[in-house]
Amino acid sequence: MSPPLEKIMDAARRVSRAYRIEQGRTFRLNQISPGDTGGAAKSVIEIQWQAKTFLDFANAQLATLQEKLYAQKRWSVLIVLQAMDAAGKDGTIKHVMSGINPQGCEVTSFKVPTGAELLHTFLWRCAQRVPEAGMIGIFNRSHYEDVLAPRIHPQFLQARNLPPSLVTKKIWSERYEDINAFERHLTRNGVLVLKFYLHLSKEEQKKRLLERINEKSKNWKFSESDIQERARWEQYMAAYEETIRATAQPWAPWYIVPADNKWFTRAIVAVTIIDALESLRLKRPKNPKEQKKILAAARKLLNKED
Amino acid sequence: MSPPLEKIMDAARRVSRAYRIEQGRTFRLNQISPGDTGGAAKSVIEIQWQAKTFLDFANAQLATLQEKLYAQKRWSVLIVLQAMDAAGKDGTIKHVMSGINPQGCEVTSFKVPTGAELLHTFLWRCAQRVPEAGMIGIFNRSHYEDVLAPRIHPQFLQARNLPPSLVTKKIWSERYEDINAFERHLTRNGVLVLKFYLHLSKEEQKKRLLERINEKSKNWKFSESDIQERARWEQYMAAYEETIRATAQPWAPWYIVPADNKWFTRAIVAVTIIDALESLRLKRPKNPKEQKKILAAARKLLNKED
Repeated sequence: MSPPLEKIMDAARRVSRAYRIEQGRTFRLNQISPGDTGGAAKSVIEIQWQAKTFLDFANAQLATLQEKLYAQKRWSVLIVLQAMDAAGKDGTIKHVMSGINPQGCEVTSFKVPTGAELLHTFLWRCAQRVPEAGMIGIFNRSHYEDVLAPRIHPQFLQARNLPPSLVTKKIWSERYEDINAFERHLTRNGVLVLKFYLHLSKEEQKKRLLERINEKSKNWKFSESDIQERARWEQYMAAYEETIRATAQPWAPWYIVPADNKWFTRAIVAVTIIDALESLRLKRPKNPKEQKKILAAARKLLNKED
Repeated sequence: MSPPLEKIMDAARRVSRAYRIEQGRTFRLNQISPGDTGGAAKSVIEIQWQAKTFLDFANAQLATLQEKLYAQKRWSVLIVLQAMDAAGKDGTIKHVMSGINPQGCEVTSFKVPTGAELLHTFLWRCAQRVPEAGMIGIFNRSHYEDVLAPRIHPQFLQARNLPPSLVTKKIWSERYEDINAFERHLTRNGVLVLKFYLHLSKEEQKKRLLERINEKSKNWKFSESDIQERARWEQYMAAYEETIRATAQPWAPWYIVPADNKWFTRAIVAVTIIDALESLRLKRPKNPKEQKKILAAARKLLNKED
């Protein structure tokens, strides 16, 4: 007999917390293996997740928490998803969030900045899309792209036409500082910030890209740029590591989620969000005292209708 | 004979720089008198400004600088105007900015936050309206209202429905810190930030409010709340002083502009903006080498038309 789902959830929570980085100074990407599936706790989570029992359970919990979040309109949740191509960002959003009311959830996919976006600071387009109180906002890629892609492709930085006097060696550390201050501002004002790096191995990416190329139904997911970016894998890993080291903060932790096994990525992301939402002790707003009278009067009025 | 306008401009620049606060720690509001008109340099500026000669000269200079700013699309300018009621914010915008092309200038008047604004962090609505590269943006009131009005009217803070655990004694110093980080982010990315406090005396406000009440053509400018806020004058002065002390920074200085004489306020604001724009050494973008060929080909094509 399988252990009760609550027990599995507790085990998964403990696993998830081990991937939480609150203080980046000593962090190295190679401390966490992309193939990790949580050690001892693994098998039972895997079985239940694959069987959808645990996924259904997690989805239902998320749906309940989201409803309270929405009713209370006091907190909001910003979920940042960053990863290399084919690490499973879209699939994670689909599977983890499908149970919740879409009225309370906004997904923003940030692409290469264009037009008005390039004429504003790199935080401008992201700041606009921060979820309002009561909402869950998901950034599928985010302001973190601006400390990753332009480091590897200097032309992305040039596209911003910044005053040359402002483009110095310090630009990346300044951007880290600005990101930290931005996220601290959010958390001080009721936005819970959760940042996920889906940690994929180069070998697993190869496998998944070949699938996209070889399976007709997956062809639409393939982009030539996937291969071009893959050729710069080591540069990206170095940029991710430096970024996580500089921006993992107690108020806005990074979760480094092993991504070579899709079921595991999804389970960990789901459990992490549930864990964080529960820490807010969300409550539906209480009825003010006058509400009783208002309800009674309204009941009377409605019942009087012919 | 009056000295040439360039000389008057230089004198006005020197006066304007004396009102610049880059480092707030030792600042006190009473260091600058609302009735000040720039000492020795006064008379000649006054005569020429009143005669509109100097105003026309300043407007023309501003117009030329703004055109370069717009053509280069590299820098933008954010002008923040804060003051008590009737200090002359609207009149300053009207007189100082009337000469420039409105296509390159956006004025945003921030009112009491409502609806979606209250569901986001206090910086959200202001961050959206930061001018894009090439533009001059004027904030008629700004994010600074959020460290002024809610201090004096606690119900404005309550209206935000923030999680109680986040509303601590530190909230104002946290907001100062967030504002400083926000403005530093802007200046690091090509936004020149100029903040003006129009420094009005309580006596002069009384005179101007009575004018609004007694002169029929000015009645529309009067609001009951002007009197209510006036009753809290000392609280506002204390909040302004603390705010300026905490947020005057080398990258985003405050200008404390004496406001009991309208002509002087306008002259100083105009000259300060001109001075700041000139420091950017704006240039129209150079034609790239290929442009010559393109122009020649286009000329040929147009001349060939029947």
